[in-house]
Amino acid sequence: MVIDYFLSTLMSTTQQFRTERDTFGELQVPSDRYWGAQTQRSLQNFDIGGPTERLPPPLIKAFGVLKKAASIVNVGYGLDPKIGEAIQQAADDVISGKLNDHFPLVVFQTGSGTQSNMNVNEVISNRAIESLGGELGSKKPVHPNDHVNMSQSSNDTFPTAMHIAAVTEIHRSLVPALSELRDALDAKSQAFEHIIKIGRTHLQDATPLTLGQEFSGYVQQISNCIERVKAVIPRLSLLAQGGTAVGTGLNTKKGFDVKVAEEISKLTGLEFKTAPNKFEALAAHDALVEAHGALNVLACSFMKIANDIRYLGSGPRCGLGELSLPENEPGSSIMPGKVNPTQCEALTMVAAQVMGNQTTVSIAGSNGQFELNVFKPVIIKNVLQSIRLLADGARSFTKNCVVGIQANESRIKSLLNESLMLATILNSHLGYDNVAKCAKKAHKEGTTLKEATVSLGLLSPEEFDAKVRPELMLYPDP
Amino acid sequence: MVIDYFLSTLMSTTQQFRTERDTFGELQVPSDRYWGAQTQRSLQNFDIGGPTERLPPPLIKAFGVLKKAASIVNVGYGLDPKIGEAIQQAADDVISGKLNDHFPLVVFQTGSGTQSNMNVNEVISNRAIESLGGELGSKKPVHPNDHVNMSQSSNDTFPTAMHIAAVTEIHRSLVPALSELRDALDAKSQAFEHIIKIGRTHLQDATPLTLGQEFSGYVQQISNCIERVKAVIPRLSLLAQGGTAVGTGLNTKKGFDVKVAEEISKLTGLEFKTAPNKFEALAAHDALVEAHGALNVLACSFMKIANDIRYLGSGPRCGLGELSLPENEPGSSIMPGKVNPTQCEALTMVAAQVMGNQTTVSIAGSNGQFELNVFKPVIIKNVLQSIRLLADGARSFTKNCVVGIQANESRIKSLLNESLMLATILNSHLGYDNVAKCAKKAHKEGTTLKEATVSLGLLSPEEFDAKVRPELMLYPDP
Amino acid sequence: MVIDYFLSTLMSTTQQFRTERDTFGELQVPSDRYWGAQTQRSLQNFDIGGPTERLPPPLIKAFGVLKKAASIVNVGYGLDPKIGEAIQQAADDVISGKLNDHFPLVVFQTGSGTQSNMNVNEVISNRAIESLGGELGSKKPVHPNDHVNMSQSSNDTFPTAMHIAAVTEIHRSLVPALSELRDALDAKSQAFEHIIKIGRTHLQDATPLTLGQEFSGYVQQISNCIERVKAVIPRLSLLAQGGTAVGTGLNTKKGFDVKVAEEISKLTGLEFKTAPNKFEALAAHDALVEAHGALNVLACSFMKIANDIRYLGSGPRCGLGELSLPENEPGSSIMPGKVNPTQCEALTMVAAQVMGNQTTVSIAGSNGQFELNVFKPVIIKNVLQSIRLLADGARSFTKNCVVGIQANESRIKSLLNESLMLATILNSHLGYDNVAKCAKKAHKEGTTLKEATVSLGLLSPEEFDAKVRPELMLYPDP
Amino acid sequence: MVIDYFLSTLMSTTQQFRTERDTFGELQVPSDRYWGAQTQRSLQNFDIGGPTERLPPPLIKAFGVLKKAASIVNVGYGLDPKIGEAIQQAADDVISGKLNDHFPLVVFQTGSGTQSNMNVNEVISNRAIESLGGELGSKKPVHPNDHVNMSQSSNDTFPTAMHIAAVTEIHRSLVPALSELRDALDAKSQAFEHIIKIGRTHLQDATPLTLGQEFSGYVQQISNCIERVKAVIPRLSLLAQGGTAVGTGLNTKKGFDVKVAEEISKLTGLEFKTAPNKFEALAAHDALVEAHGALNVLACSFMKIANDIRYLGSGPRCGLGELSLPENEPGSSIMPGKVNPTQCEALTMVAAQVMGNQTTVSIAGSNGQFELNVFKPVIIKNVLQSIRLLADGARSFTKNCVVGIQANESRIKSLLNESLMLATILNSHLGYDNVAKCAKKAHKEGTTLKEATVSLGLLSPEEFDAKVRPELMLYPDP
Repeated sequence: MVIDYFLSTLMSTTQQFRTERDTFGELQVPSDRYWGAQTQRSLQNFDIGGPTERLPPPLIKAFGVLKKAASIVNVGYGLDPKIGEAIQQAADDVISGKLNDHFPLVVFQTGSGTQSNMNVNEVISNRAIESLGGELGSKKPVHPNDHVNMSQSSNDTFPTAMHIAAVTEIHRSLVPALSELRDALDAKSQAFEHIIKIGRTHLQDATPLTLGQEFSGYVQQISNCIERVKAVIPRLSLLAQGGTAVGTGLNTKKGFDVKVAEEISKLTGLEFKTAPNKFEALAAHDALVEAHGALNVLACSFMKIANDIRYLGSGPRCGLGELSLPENEPGSSIMPGKVNPTQCEALTMVAAQVMGNQTTVSIAGSNGQFELNVFKPVIIKNVLQSIRLLADGARSFTKNCVVGIQANESRIKSLLNESLMLATILNSHLGYDNVAKCAKKAHKEGTTLKEATVSLGLLSPEEFDAKVRPELMLYPDP
Repeated sequence: MVIDYFLSTLMSTTQQFRTERDTFGELQVPSDRYWGAQTQRSLQNFDIGGPTERLPPPLIKAFGVLKKAASIVNVGYGLDPKIGEAIQQAADDVISGKLNDHFPLVVFQTGSGTQSNMNVNEVISNRAIESLGGELGSKKPVHPNDHVNMSQSSNDTFPTAMHIAAVTEIHRSLVPALSELRDALDAKSQAFEHIIKIGRTHLQDATPLTLGQEFSGYVQQISNCIERVKAVIPRLSLLAQGGTAVGTGLNTKKGFDVKVAEEISKLTGLEFKTAPNKFEALAAHDALVEAHGALNVLACSFMKIANDIRYLGSGPRCGLGELSLPENEPGSSIMPGKVNPTQCEALTMVAAQVMGNQTTVSIAGSNGQFELNVFKPVIIKNVLQSIRLLADGARSFTKNCVVGIQANESRIKSLLNESLMLATILNSHLGYDNVAKCAKKAHKEGTTLKEATVSLGLLSPEEFDAKVRPELMLYPDP
Repeated sequence: MVIDYFLSTLMSTTQQFRTERDTFGELQVPSDRYWGAQTQRSLQNFDIGGPTERLPPPLIKAFGVLKKAASIVNVGYGLDPKIGEAIQQAADDVISGKLNDHFPLVVFQTGSGTQSNMNVNEVISNRAIESLGGELGSKKPVHPNDHVNMSQSSNDTFPTAMHIAAVTEIHRSLVPALSELRDALDAKSQAFEHIIKIGRTHLQDATPLTLGQEFSGYVQQISNCIERVKAVIPRLSLLAQGGTAVGTGLNTKKGFDVKVAEEISKLTGLEFKTAPNKFEALAAHDALVEAHGALNVLACSFMKIANDIRYLGSGPRCGLGELSLPENEPGSSIMPGKVNPTQCEALTMVAAQVMGNQTTVSIAGSNGQFELNVFKPVIIKNVLQSIRLLADGARSFTKNCVVGIQANESRIKSLLNESLMLATILNSHLGYDNVAKCAKKAHKEGTTLKEATVSLGLLSPEEFDAKVRPELMLYPDP
Repeated sequence: MVIDYFLSTLMSTTQQFRTERDTFGELQVPSDRYWGAQTQRSLQNFDIGGPTERLPPPLIKAFGVLKKAASIVNVGYGLDPKIGEAIQQAADDVISGKLNDHFPLVVFQTGSGTQSNMNVNEVISNRAIESLGGELGSKKPVHPNDHVNMSQSSNDTFPTAMHIAAVTEIHRSLVPALSELRDALDAKSQAFEHIIKIGRTHLQDATPLTLGQEFSGYVQQISNCIERVKAVIPRLSLLAQGGTAVGTGLNTKKGFDVKVAEEISKLTGLEFKTAPNKFEALAAHDALVEAHGALNVLACSFMKIANDIRYLGSGPRCGLGELSLPENEPGSSIMPGKVNPTQCEALTMVAAQVMGNQTTVSIAGSNGQFELNVFKPVIIKNVLQSIRLLADGARSFTKNCVVGIQANESRIKSLLNESLMLATILNSHLGYDNVAKCAKKAHKEGTTLKEATVSLGLLSPEEFDAKVRPELMLYPDP
């Protein structure tokens, strides 16, 4: 059913097929696709979830990088340079994204990602065969296993591609998006530096702070999260490549692992190293669980910041109303004129998704067995989804919300002046118990704090005015 | 280290030991404890987490019920009635709770709970031996395995006790607590029936409703949750007893399973049945995962309700301020006079704990292997903790918060009158686009909706007053 | 960036645009799309996650059903029948799926799903305008708000569509898939009824059972899960429709809610009712959290069953080797001839995904605020993803694994005969302590249980043979 | 109910009460307890969960450290040295643990932990009053707020104590326990260096490795986890102290924050610094969410390692049987002689608990509001529980399992020799497709790989023996 829909989409303009074969026999494959028998077989055997569950483009791209690097190193170990070069060119096409439609496999396949590794091998081999004038599906002169997968196993290529993809997306997409968000928040923090407002703890009125100080907390959260996300890179940039089937490196060459990691570093411009222990690198994905742990913190930070901002912007007349958020679209199909904090809503939904992905990644990561963890595709799908949603979410929130936030200074000022919590500054003068009496009296009688304090005979009006000044309550005593 | 602390607590008044033995050899056991060698061995081998991680009293009580029931049935199958009666009396002591200090074992032990089953067998056997004038530790005339555990295995007793405990606590503790909460909310809903207030969607001002209607949503949530929790009982009241080691019922008697379930029903006054398939009942704990799913919904409901109430009660002067929550304690060690929504805070922390327990129970429940799930103790610990926290939390919230909630009618009225969203009622008269113009104009210019509508020439003042009446906006058009 | 990629895909064959407008102003929309200004605006404002994060087709279909039903009822309340009929025809096109490409919006948008509701209103309105010979974008003679959305609000349509979609997919897709799986497992249980095998508890050898009994546990799990999933329907089939903006039903007609639910029941052939309390139905999604709780149990069941089956099929020579699983594809790109339990792997990855979705749905469900929960899109996305993955996974597992499972009877028999746990049957004859001695002696000395028992003088060889018979160990004593 | 049970325990030997008071009025407090009115009030208002839900001792100890440090610094800022010294002595008693029975409050209280801060203030003040000859409850000469809490707020003390406790427990308990475990695994890895065994991927037979290599993967996991846990310390050792109520530092002195952090470093011997931004430090607990993320990885590692070890030790006769695990206790109450991998079971239950705590901590951490996160107690309870369970679990597993693991060399050898996967080494000689044929033929016909290869004419027997040698398959080609 799914397959029908999906293939009909992919194959809409073709009725042509060619024959491909693997060790299980022959299969018909659409003529205009580079994939081979094992990919086709997977499509038929794993009709689970449909196109939206395909392994994501950054993983395919990472596979392109890996296959190119492996081919370069293999030439050094004796692979026919002509074949090597054809592989590398085909890999470049994979990297560029223009072959994305040739990678139709879903997450819910073999847990080692074997079929996606073979999908890459098949596409690169057929593309290379084509460029060398051979016949698609002939496996000559470029064999998907013997040449494209030379010195490799799904068990080491797939986790290598997982790490390449995760590190790359963190560097190229997430960190820049977070930096933009932090900078935008920081600009607001500075712009709001002079605006004194009521603080709120337990949602209840508390002592004052500046709106700039409030935003500085958000800036610190994002700054810390950038640090956190970077802090996982040392372990995430270690590559399994060279472990082959079980971690021993059988059927590969001494030094292959180190050289491939070097080549990948060159191709990506990012530093990768070979993993010190390949058994761990195949059988566990602790580094990805750890990385998602950092993404999860970011989700929590986003939830806090977006919640604060939408509550501070609540109203326009019956909420807190301290901030005005940008109006980006009509808010209600029934209530005309309503404008809603939709960017905050999108961002908190991103947070909820990422916090759930944390559970998925943890469960999947904990379930390695002996020499292999076979939850690889679901792990990387969730990690890459979280990275993308957080990065896209940060960018959208920055652009469509943060930069346009305005402070409603008159509202902020009027709330501040009504508060009873300014009394706190009197603690050191009058003692906690006395001050509590003043505040409670004012609250009960609906009067101002000053009136209550004076009527209790604790301070004269002049003393009160001299001491209870919000601008003195923003810092420790000097 | 832990054990030292723990045993020193338990054994503080005793320096006396007696010798107990199991198939592994002899062990010294505190003379004033009824437990035997296997319990003592577990204490020494599983020094994990200390006393707060002990299996909870409701499980011990359920074991008492089970052992009593089994003994009654076993007498019918030939167990010496004198021994049977001694066992039943000892089991009554377990049920009463007065032997709780004789059950020191923690959750993190054998995953089948074997050692806790043996703890029960040992305590009952020694207690029965004592009552019959025998020597503690002699296993005569009441043997922990041959008599107390007759026709049973840890593998069927532990899951049976899990179900008895969960069903009992739901019936005796959780459902009554929820009913109280629902009734208290319902009383408020009725008391607040006449108070028209601004609605809030997306945190933004929306069309009005009554405070009573708002509370009726909470009533519905709790009513539904009571239904949900009850809806899992049919599967949760199925008992594994009779499956013995692997589900076949080896070493028990035909009919034993049915009779034990009947006896347990009599002893508890609750309906239990024998599980239709004992293999499932030992190897999976789907019924407990399902039950926790219902508890998890309750946690979500609590989070929603407690959040709403604390936001509606925020202030006293700079928040929404529609509700006044009871003042139960001083709120701040630095801000005198501050009163906080602490019952809401406790309840939302309960919710967070239960939502995490859901993950634990699911992971544990998914990890059965072949004929047995060996995450039994951690499953029941989390289920019983969730039940207790939700029940206690509901009672505390009802008593210390809900019943004392007061509506600030003047504040509610003043907010309502400021709102622009009353415009919505004009949609069918003026069309959505025109009404949007009025609301936007009023918002921009800081005027009332009426002024904007009139100045746009859409309605006369009289028409406006006749149409825009909050009390007409609380129901569908007749 | 995303939008570029996405729009370029969608718009690849068109350079034509038309102008659409909403209360915020004008926008250019691709001429060959029916969506209008609000959809276009959302595309631009929520560039988060790209096409794979679009709201899923079953939700769009459910919206089609809802809009059709509403239109039918609205005609009864006075809507021009010509307009009504045009809306109903357009809604039929939505239901059929042929307009799926006109619903480009992602999950991470307004948390009420307002923009998706408007997307539906716009598409239906333009489609109806077209069929009536009007001009796309003119809102005449069929206005997206005033006619298509008549008597409705996003706040009640979106949750109504959520429930319709979830109930429909459970009925039409999940339950049939589970029934197939249960039947396939049951067929195996019966086919394996006569095969006696060693039981395993704690992964260790235990007393015997039949392979049929072992599979009967899986059958029971799936049967119970079907019951569980159905048990949530009573609450899931209650519809929010009629609550409009905040639950009061403002701007709708008395009886509209009941009639819409009846119409939806007719259109779907499934029983839906109007929710008894609309405030709860808008502000909380407890029914969906509950429903996902049932899906989560299913995930746990799948994890258990798939794990068992792959361990029992492990080998071919160095594992347990009791089952042979179908060989569906080559297993390794480096180890020739290797065949892997890939369907089990896919299914356990589905389980991990669903268990994480449970966390997402719970967090999202707990975060309603006042009159509205604004995590609606992420809730329904996850619920529908879980339903689909579980249904597809069940079907794939049934077809590609379960039906082809074969028992390796000789291997099973040889393992059984080596076991020491057959000793358990002697408990009632010799007592637990004596039997333990026999088993330990045999284990230590590497002999058979019989040799050990005889050499300890506890039984004669003949007595041993007469008593220790696996076929007597499969049931309780008669 | 709970309180009755609890207080009856605590107060069993006393019928004496004294009067304590706070701003809310007077309360009766047990005479032999140092706590005061606010503690007593909390006990009465938060009857949720009972004694097992008390805030854990390491947090109380951390509070002792903090109050001592604050007092030392306060003397420098003018606090009467006599009062200061009395406070410090009382704080030492708190640190020592001997006053643990004076801290009865549960997690589910005020979300800022205000009442626990006041509990500490009250106990220290009364203890100090007592040592100075004053009257308990008189607040003279040592006032709980004005002196013990001088320059502090619950809002900064509680998070400070959270960080002190977490960092201390990680350093003093968790890291040493992990180091022991790693060393024990490493010793096994070295002892097993020479034992060649079959590898397993997808649970299926794969190419060989040594048992030492297999264990080296576990060593790497634990080594990495030690690194990970340490990697969070930089952010976890930043202290909120000095922020007071909302982060501004109102009512404290300039420099107080830095000096308190220095003093705490001295007292603990661990490096702490004042947080660069106090707004973030009060309102968010990202650092603790991050820290728990590292604990969560550890849980995943434990799950993998313990699962592997119990499967490798499964049997004794019908499982994999490659390892023998120590026999620590009788395994079954019904199957005599059964020995189970109970330490693995306890450790995997620890893992399940910690993975659930991750969800709790994340939800709680994401829910800060404005200037304060009010899920503090539930966060620190879960973090400290996870640390303790992981540390205790690691110690128990090391001592009672890892050090006693033995390899069953003959079983390992016999499995290795049966395997077909040794064929993989022939890939580079014969090509993947040919080798696949050999393996499949042998599997189908039940012959050895050698027989199949020779009969296919691909190698002579001598060639086969020369090439297919497991000891050549443990490393890359040189």
